[in-house]
Amino acid sequence: MGEARLTILGSGSARPTFQNSPSGQILELCDKSFLIDCGEGVQITMARMGIRTSRLYNIFISHLHGDHCFGLLGLLSSLSMQGRLQPMHIYAHADLEKLLRPQLDYYCKDLSYEIFFHAINPRKRAVIFEDRTVQVETVPLKHSVPCCGFLFSETHRQPDGEGGFVRVPRKRYAYCSDTLYTERFVEQIEGVDMLYHESTFLEAQAKLCRAVMHSTASQAAKIATLAKARRLLIGHFSARVIDHTDFLNEAQSLFPDTLLAKEGEILTF
Amino acid sequence: MGEARLTILGSGSARPTFQNSPSGQILELCDKSFLIDCGEGVQITMARMGIRTSRLYNIFISHLHGDHCFGLLGLLSSLSMQGRLQPMHIYAHADLEKLLRPQLDYYCKDLSYEIFFHAINPRKRAVIFEDRTVQVETVPLKHSVPCCGFLFSETHRQPDGEGGFVRVPRKRYAYCSDTLYTERFVEQIEGVDMLYHESTFLEAQAKLCRAVMHSTASQAAKIATLAKARRLLIGHFSARVIDHTDFLNEAQSLFPDTLLAKEGEILTF
Repeated sequence: MGEARLTILGSGSARPTFQNSPSGQILELCDKSFLIDCGEGVQITMARMGIRTSRLYNIFISHLHGDHCFGLLGLLSSLSMQGRLQPMHIYAHADLEKLLRPQLDYYCKDLSYEIFFHAINPRKRAVIFEDRTVQVETVPLKHSVPCCGFLFSETHRQPDGEGGFVRVPRKRYAYCSDTLYTERFVEQIEGVDMLYHESTFLEAQAKLCRAVMHSTASQAAKIATLAKARRLLIGHFSARVIDHTDFLNEAQSLFPDTLLAKEGEILTF
Repeated sequence: MGEARLTILGSGSARPTFQNSPSGQILELCDKSFLIDCGEGVQITMARMGIRTSRLYNIFISHLHGDHCFGLLGLLSSLSMQGRLQPMHIYAHADLEKLLRPQLDYYCKDLSYEIFFHAINPRKRAVIFEDRTVQVETVPLKHSVPCCGFLFSETHRQPDGEGGFVRVPRKRYAYCSDTLYTERFVEQIEGVDMLYHESTFLEAQAKLCRAVMHSTASQAAKIATLAKARRLLIGHFSARVIDHTDFLNEAQSLFPDTLLAKEGEILTF
């Protein structure tokens, strides 16, 4: 079973702060790189961290709020300036293509590579990517716009006893952001090696949190407990909470194996 | 004569590097703030530097290349989330409104404030902003797309001897980016207190520099000399040059009063 590497490019919520940029993560699994969400500045953080984009073929966008996709145009444009030839696949709500195409046509007239948009239905659990070793499923969430998380599974083929094969999951990573507290996907992510669950607010702000359809650190911890996740990673922190250890303490009191998503850090699991 | 303050938010060129973000500057003149260009990440740098946006009413975009405007959507969106009420005025090529409106309509449905787009003709020298104490003129440049710089003048009214008044310029700042070497605007910016002139390459890369319609550090220094600028500020550095002192040395050998635009720094003049 290979090691998974997760690079945190941004772990803030809508409003950037002195310590947080909008959402973005790179998951490396079975020698492949997957970009998950692409808020403004993702390509800048990648450049600062010296992350090469040549192995990046797939981008997954959870939902069309700016803090999860405003960095796409800049990234796609820069890849073309670098002379990229390999195609890029983007998995997102169908509206993304409608919004991005006119921008790409104007700003990146002679794109050096092809972009394939794969329209996903965030309301439905479905396998949206599959190759020999990795499978990606949508994880339907509850947010103010259609939104889904993503479950990444390293899979390997095993004889099914009848002359065929079945895919057996090994390492699994679930990315669940943004969402109101909901247990509807707990069964789907049961036993994941790492669960990223948004934690925009603290319990002290529970009312505001519900109103804007986000989760608290305690709620993230509750989901991790119910799902029997091995570890919990929390992020998408509100600009209202200055000291992130408040998030950590709140979550750890329910689920000790909790980590804070810190920008520029790389986790292995 | 008041002091002018210039905050460097980004001084790189198209491709972000470990040290440079795309273009963005804030000029404070006569108690007013003007944002000049807005590459990706400008709002993030502003948040990191603790810069308040409440005094920002006017944004000037030199041209529609991504590294000069991809940060606009995120900034405008964040201002709405902060509940801004004051209108924002954007001065740019007419295409910007056509490109941004559908994005704003989708991502920022109930914008809390009004945005006024002022279409400018980058090919023509014209006064595009004027109030009691500040005047802004376009400075036509030569680039691969329509592009202009901006000349900011602190003005004050003096009796003209015939019972009327004339506006007399005091402190002046010229922002000239992006451009091929051209002397066509030298007379317009003569004697400015500070000249920002792009310096994407070094003389060693003069051929490439011409091909992509940019200027070298020497050429920026030559313009500063011809224009009798008091000081020269260079920026828009290519990702190909790692050590920025190479730019500084090249420019200073012709124009000693040259400064490097360093991100996060504030200059007064």
